Amino acid sequence: MKILMMLFLVPFLFGMVQAEVVTRTVEYNEGSTVLEGYLAYDNALQGKRPGVLVVHEWTGLGDYVKGRAEQLAKLGYVAFAVDIYGKGIRPKNNDEAGAQATIYRKDRPLMRRRITAGLDYLKKNDLVDVSRIAAIGYCFGGGVVLELARSGADIAGVVTFHGSLDTPTPEDAKNIKCKVLVLHGADDPFVTPEQVSAFEKEMRDAKVDWQLMKFSGAVHSFSNPASGNDPSKGAAYSPSADRRSWQAMKDFFAEIFAK
Amino acid sequence: MKILMMLFLVPFLFGMVQAEVVTRTVEYNEGSTVLEGYLAYDNALQGKRPGVLVVHEWTGLGDYVKGRAEQLAKLGYVAFAVDIYGKGIRPKNNDEAGAQATIYRKDRPLMRRRITAGLDYLKKNDLVDVSRIAAIGYCFGGGVVLELARSGADIAGVVTFHGSLDTPTPEDAKNIKCKVLVLHGADDPFVTPEQVSAFEKEMRDAKVDWQLMKFSGAVHSFSNPASGNDPSKGAAYSPSADRRSWQAMKDFFAEIFAK
Repeated sequence: MKILMMLFLVPFLFGMVQAEVVTRTVEYNEGSTVLEGYLAYDNALQGKRPGVLVVHEWTGLGDYVKGRAEQLAKLGYVAFAVDIYGKGIRPKNNDEAGAQATIYRKDRPLMRRRITAGLDYLKKNDLVDVSRIAAIGYCFGGGVVLELARSGADIAGVVTFHGSLDTPTPEDAKNIKCKVLVLHGADDPFVTPEQVSAFEKEMRDAKVDWQLMKFSGAVHSFSNPASGNDPSKGAAYSPSADRRSWQAMKDFFAEIFAK
Repeated sequence: MKILMMLFLVPFLFGMVQAEVVTRTVEYNEGSTVLEGYLAYDNALQGKRPGVLVVHEWTGLGDYVKGRAEQLAKLGYVAFAVDIYGKGIRPKNNDEAGAQATIYRKDRPLMRRRITAGLDYLKKNDLVDVSRIAAIGYCFGGGVVLELARSGADIAGVVTFHGSLDTPTPEDAKNIKCKVLVLHGADDPFVTPEQVSAFEKEMRDAKVDWQLMKFSGAVHSFSNPASGNDPSKGAAYSPSADRRSWQAMKDFFAEIFAK
């Protein structure tokens, strides 16, 4: 009997059961605003599992974060790449991206409502274990998941990849209930040492459970291959920082999602 | 045939093959000085494997680092807890520990010779794949493994746990050939923010492949349960920082020891 059970397990152990990642573009709302997100999960898995929100860079919901959602689905999570800007609002260049990001960076209550709408949508998904939800964000999106944490959201953790760390209301860190992991390029010119120091002070003063990891030679957007390979421009892809930061996220999830 | 092979593998997959950790106190030399280290490896494993040097805190080679060597042996490495101070020199209190540590902190060439003697000893071990050697160090020992790196040692990586980061010769960072991982308590009063900044500058200027991870709420000696649980004393055990830093070390080893 024991041997039979083991034989039954063998294909799983050898990864012979392939992931069947299903993706879907979905509409949801924040107030009267229609948002359009991207859901990804593994259809070959049974039962409830942790959910992970993915928040886009200033360029808006696009292929990069959709790819991250699919990677997370392969890891066994229900991933939901949210839309902060609204359906159809997909900046085509840096000027448009900057204009959109600025709207939310200047109106943190609105930023919080938008990401909370994504969280509420994910929670309604029958496959999601609502006691095990995290949020990750890239660049602008890193700042968004920190704002979600500062709003007092009842989630397990947030992870930022080369994310903005500044906030107009550092005192709100006292609301943070979740664990925080910051993955930072040591040479990022857009998230300055002063911002890092201020963030550390904010977290320390509020006694948050936080971790910060710095990767040498990495600048802004280090996890995105589309950022090119010239760090002197301030944004560039770093294969090592990409790999290491993803591993750090997986370790963090293993901790916060442990039953 | 395939099924048979799988059945054969099942006990390994289920961890039914137990590690047989062998430990041995060994003598070796640095010049005319006799040193007494502690070797640990898994006798149930076959063939060459990576080697890891373990460098003690200022209190000298004792049960704590011996335990770490045994943990590393269980992970499949040949671990060698070195002796920087010399056979029989095992400080009994903080005064004696401080006096010993100061000798080496003031004489970095001597510190380098002592740790290099340990490295040379480990390299002679037939079980060690000499192309895959790392060194880890705790507190004082963290400073020692960084000095080993600055000496230009041909190893794969060094890891410091709440280690000293300062050096009288930051320009020697240009000699560093290995990867560097620093695991730091965010509230460590003995390794100050100024020292962390100076270290980052040293590494950056020399274009070293480095990473630094900060753990919230952690002070000096966060990985050692014997440090007590009162962070206000400046040294205390942090179960979360201990667990997270050990995981970060394992990830680092997976990277630097990959064939």
